[in-house]
Amino acid sequence: MTTPTLTHLDEQGQAQMVDVGGKAATRRRAVAEAFVIAQPETIAAITGGTLKKGDALAVARIAGIMAAKKTSELIPLCHPIALTKVTVEIEPVRDTGTLHVVATAETVGQTGVEMEALTAASVAALTLYDMAKAIDRAMAVTDLRLVEKSGGKSGDYVRAP
Amino acid sequence: MTTPTLTHLDEQGQAQMVDVGGKAATRRRAVAEAFVIAQPETIAAITGGTLKKGDALAVARIAGIMAAKKTSELIPLCHPIALTKVTVEIEPVRDTGTLHVVATAETVGQTGVEMEALTAASVAALTLYDMAKAIDRAMAVTDLRLVEKSGGKSGDYVRAP
Amino acid sequence: MTTPTLTHLDEQGQAQMVDVGGKAATRRRAVAEAFVIAQPETIAAITGGTLKKGDALAVARIAGIMAAKKTSELIPLCHPIALTKVTVEIEPVRDTGTLHVVATAETVGQTGVEMEALTAASVAALTLYDMAKAIDRAMAVTDLRLVEKSGGKSGDYVRAP
Amino acid sequence: MTTPTLTHLDEQGQAQMVDVGGKAATRRRAVAEAFVIAQPETIAAITGGTLKKGDALAVARIAGIMAAKKTSELIPLCHPIALTKVTVEIEPVRDTGTLHVVATAETVGQTGVEMEALTAASVAALTLYDMAKAIDRAMAVTDLRLVEKSGGKSGDYVRAP
Amino acid sequence: MTTPTLTHLDEQGQAQMVDVGGKAATRRRAVAEAFVIAQPETIAAITGGTLKKGDALAVARIAGIMAAKKTSELIPLCHPIALTKVTVEIEPVRDTGTLHVVATAETVGQTGVEMEALTAASVAALTLYDMAKAIDRAMAVTDLRLVEKSGGKSGDYVRAP
Amino acid sequence: MTTPTLTHLDEQGQAQMVDVGGKAATRRRAVAEAFVIAQPETIAAITGGTLKKGDALAVARIAGIMAAKKTSELIPLCHPIALTKVTVEIEPVRDTGTLHVVATAETVGQTGVEMEALTAASVAALTLYDMAKAIDRAMAVTDLRLVEKSGGKSGDYVRAP
Repeated sequence: MTTPTLTHLDEQGQAQMVDVGGKAATRRRAVAEAFVIAQPETIAAITGGTLKKGDALAVARIAGIMAAKKTSELIPLCHPIALTKVTVEIEPVRDTGTLHVVATAETVGQTGVEMEALTAASVAALTLYDMAKAIDRAMAVTDLRLVEKSGGKSGDYVRAP
Repeated sequence: MTTPTLTHLDEQGQAQMVDVGGKAATRRRAVAEAFVIAQPETIAAITGGTLKKGDALAVARIAGIMAAKKTSELIPLCHPIALTKVTVEIEPVRDTGTLHVVATAETVGQTGVEMEALTAASVAALTLYDMAKAIDRAMAVTDLRLVEKSGGKSGDYVRAP
Repeated sequence: MTTPTLTHLDEQGQAQMVDVGGKAATRRRAVAEAFVIAQPETIAAITGGTLKKGDALAVARIAGIMAAKKTSELIPLCHPIALTKVTVEIEPVRDTGTLHVVATAETVGQTGVEMEALTAASVAALTLYDMAKAIDRAMAVTDLRLVEKSGGKSGDYVRAP
Repeated sequence: MTTPTLTHLDEQGQAQMVDVGGKAATRRRAVAEAFVIAQPETIAAITGGTLKKGDALAVARIAGIMAAKKTSELIPLCHPIALTKVTVEIEPVRDTGTLHVVATAETVGQTGVEMEALTAASVAALTLYDMAKAIDRAMAVTDLRLVEKSGGKSGDYVRAP
Repeated sequence: MTTPTLTHLDEQGQAQMVDVGGKAATRRRAVAEAFVIAQPETIAAITGGTLKKGDALAVARIAGIMAAKKTSELIPLCHPIALTKVTVEIEPVRDTGTLHVVATAETVGQTGVEMEALTAASVAALTLYDMAKAIDRAMAVTDLRLVEKSGGKSGDYVRAP
Repeated sequence: MTTPTLTHLDEQGQAQMVDVGGKAATRRRAVAEAFVIAQPETIAAITGGTLKKGDALAVARIAGIMAAKKTSELIPLCHPIALTKVTVEIEPVRDTGTLHVVATAETVGQTGVEMEALTAASVAALTLYDMAKAIDRAMAVTDLRLVEKSGGKSGDYVRAP
């Protein structure tokens, strides 16, 4: 087995922000997801139950959208990207103590937006944790991962089910 | 069952940055973890195998440390905190395609540092994803969660094994 | 009439971040307000009328809270401050095409939080503008001002009615 | 009367960063203004009277220019924009205790720059407040609003006098 | 000769943000300097000659002050610090094509402010370069260094002349 | 001798972010350098001697790369730029107590990337200072300057040897 090499390290193993200047600017899209696992009462407190709906989900969605715009400040070797669209959806998964976070990012540019979608999903999930941690410290974020991507030379990707 | 209420929402369900001005400044510490699941070759490419060691782990550790300092910019209702210490450790878990990320944050202040530790762990994990995504798009981050915390009125917490 | 001098300029008229190192750390609080003037239909679209309530007010509140934390990055001579509380309230003013934004900021520190409250109010107001500008470009923000402050050596202040 | 809907909320009323990926990149320009109302002595202290001119106006202009570049970090649903020009002008209005702030922003891109001009004007005005607040806490910012915009599909706009 | 070890690396050579939680909060001050070497005409264009004085020096001073507040975002292992004072002075050195930049930073805290003073001096110097580069690309910044520091357990330091 | 005028100031000497909206988007590249002068033992501690190599150089390289992306936040009149490549190299200069930092930045855009390369070089150098300052406070950064640039209407530049 030959160990593959990381594109973000040069031949001496030094980190670099790789050259995308010669790549075509194409329409690119990525979808990422994460799951927040919590006690059923915590899920109810976040989603507002059947009666009144507070800001909790809105706060998490907005945190995710704003975090997507900060991706290149957080991930050292990410290129700055002019995002053309970001959405974050949060839905309880029926009959489980789980919230499903789905983040979508799009751009027209020279590099993909996987990291922007993943960053949005993770910060939205952590924001839910922050708001509920006083009642449920054992909450966890799990299966933070890319769901699909399109655009760019490396081709489309859809996670195997 | 009474649904508990979120401290970060007021009685109308509106988001607020809660008052910590009356809390004592005590020494606080939190440890968070995350796991990065990948193909064995990917783990080898990141950790550098047996021969030479590149910057990959250093980049991820530094990204986590710097992200901890950005927590209050990312999590909308977090208080700004003068962190006194941050460390990020990344170790392969023997015989599995898994990297274990452990982030520790400390402060002397009026509010806890759980979110700082969690943010550091998640950004370190996503940075590993970023560097290796060209060779393994299916990598996932899982079990991002609080391991323990100490300091503050709410008492110490250690995750049940 | 003697022209008073600005504390933020030295004797040569050069900008400086003034020394607060000798000031006592006391509990400080400031309240600021702003009014958003718009068409009645715009107000209805923002507040959601009687039927369903969207995220618009939540987005603006959160934008204001997050902006308060960025004040020292925006206002060149402001000191960085560890805010202990921030709230933003937005209410329609009855029988007028006006939304009233009220922002409160608190800290325990060596310098006041007026700029934090004013920044929160202005960014919350501009966020409302952003969301509604496609339907009402003529909206305006007016009477952005300090309502009251307390704490610190310069004494308390309450705006004359 | 049908209440118009906000483009920044989806059909469930959830905040989103709307898709501009299909819009043409055209030259776009926006001008915004704000007025700072103060005591005549305060205006004199800021503008430097007839004798010597300090940094106060320069600080406010630069704060406005730098804030324009931060707009997408402050306004949650704003797209990041590569600004090609920003200017901020501050002039006393003759015979009144008023400073007139005018900010202009330009880009070649897929979305307008109204928010950038408004953000520049508001932060320049608040920076004037910051520097003079020790001598005049009752200063207010008023009529923060769009003066004109051009470029883009929604057509040109000039505020009615 | 024993090679000394870097405090910012642990025993495995891994970067860490070192623990300052046990250090006393004392008053700390640092002064740094830098020199900008340029053609005499460039110096004249920056300082405004004998007739009128533009914003150039003010822009550079403000850039330095604002950069000091960003130090912990720029220098990975720096602790966030609540600066209590920052000043930047820029003076032409008589009979040379040189501008002397002096930055002073102060805090009351657990860690020193050398990096804040150095960051302020370097960004002020680079801002001068930016404004004059169209007329003098060969400008250089030299002797960017600590002049003195006081406060903290490591004792005072004054650069040898 | 006619004093040349600074492009970044208008005819009244007021700072402005100059208009680049009419310039062509071309491929642009800049290389900057800086030297860190230190005691030989300090150089050895940073570069790791002959035995084991710690993170010090990696931390400085990454700090430089991340700082390049922050240039328009630091230098007030810089345009935001979508960097397509950034690298930072750090090498000891044989037989001297000196480290040579070389930063390269590239973009496809309407304005040059000299400031991005210079910012990367200076922050990498200051990060080395930060990590080693406890053992060698007298370290200095010198000859921070542009080495070469290409692309854009003003033509190519190579520093005279």
